[in-house]
Amino acid sequence: MIPGRLEKALGHAFADPGLLQTALTHRSHSAPHNERLEFIGDSVLNCAVALELYRRFPALTEGEMSRLRANLVRQDTLHRIAESLALGDCLRLGEGELKSGGHRRPSILADAVEAIIGAVHLDAGFDAAAALVGRLYAAHLAGIVPGQQIKDPKTRLQEFLQGRRLALPQYVLLDTSGEAHAQNFRVACEVPALRLKTEGVGQSRRAAEQMAAERALEKLK
Amino acid sequence: MIPGRLEKALGHAFADPGLLQTALTHRSHSAPHNERLEFIGDSVLNCAVALELYRRFPALTEGEMSRLRANLVRQDTLHRIAESLALGDCLRLGEGELKSGGHRRPSILADAVEAIIGAVHLDAGFDAAAALVGRLYAAHLAGIVPGQQIKDPKTRLQEFLQGRRLALPQYVLLDTSGEAHAQNFRVACEVPALRLKTEGVGQSRRAAEQMAAERALEKLK
Repeated sequence: MIPGRLEKALGHAFADPGLLQTALTHRSHSAPHNERLEFIGDSVLNCAVALELYRRFPALTEGEMSRLRANLVRQDTLHRIAESLALGDCLRLGEGELKSGGHRRPSILADAVEAIIGAVHLDAGFDAAAALVGRLYAAHLAGIVPGQQIKDPKTRLQEFLQGRRLALPQYVLLDTSGEAHAQNFRVACEVPALRLKTEGVGQSRRAAEQMAAERALEKLK
Repeated sequence: MIPGRLEKALGHAFADPGLLQTALTHRSHSAPHNERLEFIGDSVLNCAVALELYRRFPALTEGEMSRLRANLVRQDTLHRIAESLALGDCLRLGEGELKSGGHRRPSILADAVEAIIGAVHLDAGFDAAAALVGRLYAAHLAGIVPGQQIKDPKTRLQEFLQGRRLALPQYVLLDTSGEAHAQNFRVACEVPALRLKTEGVGQSRRAAEQMAAERALEKLK
């Protein structure tokens, strides 16, 4: 049973509600699950964001648009979008995943957002799916200041602190988990002068540091 | 001056011929050049191929579709499509690139194909661009045998030879070029028992070996 609330939040009424049901079904629950829809959704998302950046920023190079896009489509951004939709409550998970808190896991939530985008494409075509992406990313797109956000978060944080003559942040590896081919890193970013401490996770140490730096920047805004 | 032949081969008459002109203009020639269109086209291509695989192969997993797609959108495949369009004759290159044979360079040709796909999207929307991708890739898509092509070329070549009780191929690094962060590898694949020798290039040794193996398989067909 899909909450009407979710369709309303998405701004799309499904002609085939089974597609949304599938998009919300994790593979641990039952088949059909959302992995194939996620494959579609991931590429629709990449494409819709590329087109949006192309239209909004005529002066940006290909490389600059690539970097902006990578920032918009990464798991952390999708996770926040999932949280803004309260998507965790709508997911269908297997018992094991439910018990281990799967409905709060960033990767599961991010994948479901992509699957929903894929479901809307199959339900109503590319333009409808791209319009959904535009709605989900409205705030993120509006917040882009070319030339600023093109620099990665660690660089921006460093420049912010240097501009105030404060000591540079320290990045501390908190732990790693997972097997060798799919490790997860958890890193803290500490700015003692501002009594600031944030955390980031990622599949590389660098990615985790970037996320921690981004969160530090948000607190400093 | 764009040859009418090209529009005919593409099966798309541009409402705005300037878009096609830009798609054919390398950055060495003049601005506006095709790099921003290539960014759009790359993502439209990825998306259109994803949708095509989703529709054609309902039994494939996300991972299997990903591998098939990677094979379809890589430079070597795009290069062949460019050659089938005789695209080299239509490119606008700077003098230096012209002299050094830029109109035959795989990367320049592959990029121009992507830029054309992007130009069609801007000219007539996603569905028109996806239809172009369907036409350009018709033979490649029709040639997919799930479960066969999902294995990578080196594996398929090995299995082909083992099935005939022949010695395994040898991969020999011929040379590397370029700077450390953007090296190019050239590798030979040799099957002495069949007097077969092919070459492949790529940005990693493994990628070059896969291309050489793929070309060996084509000769064995």
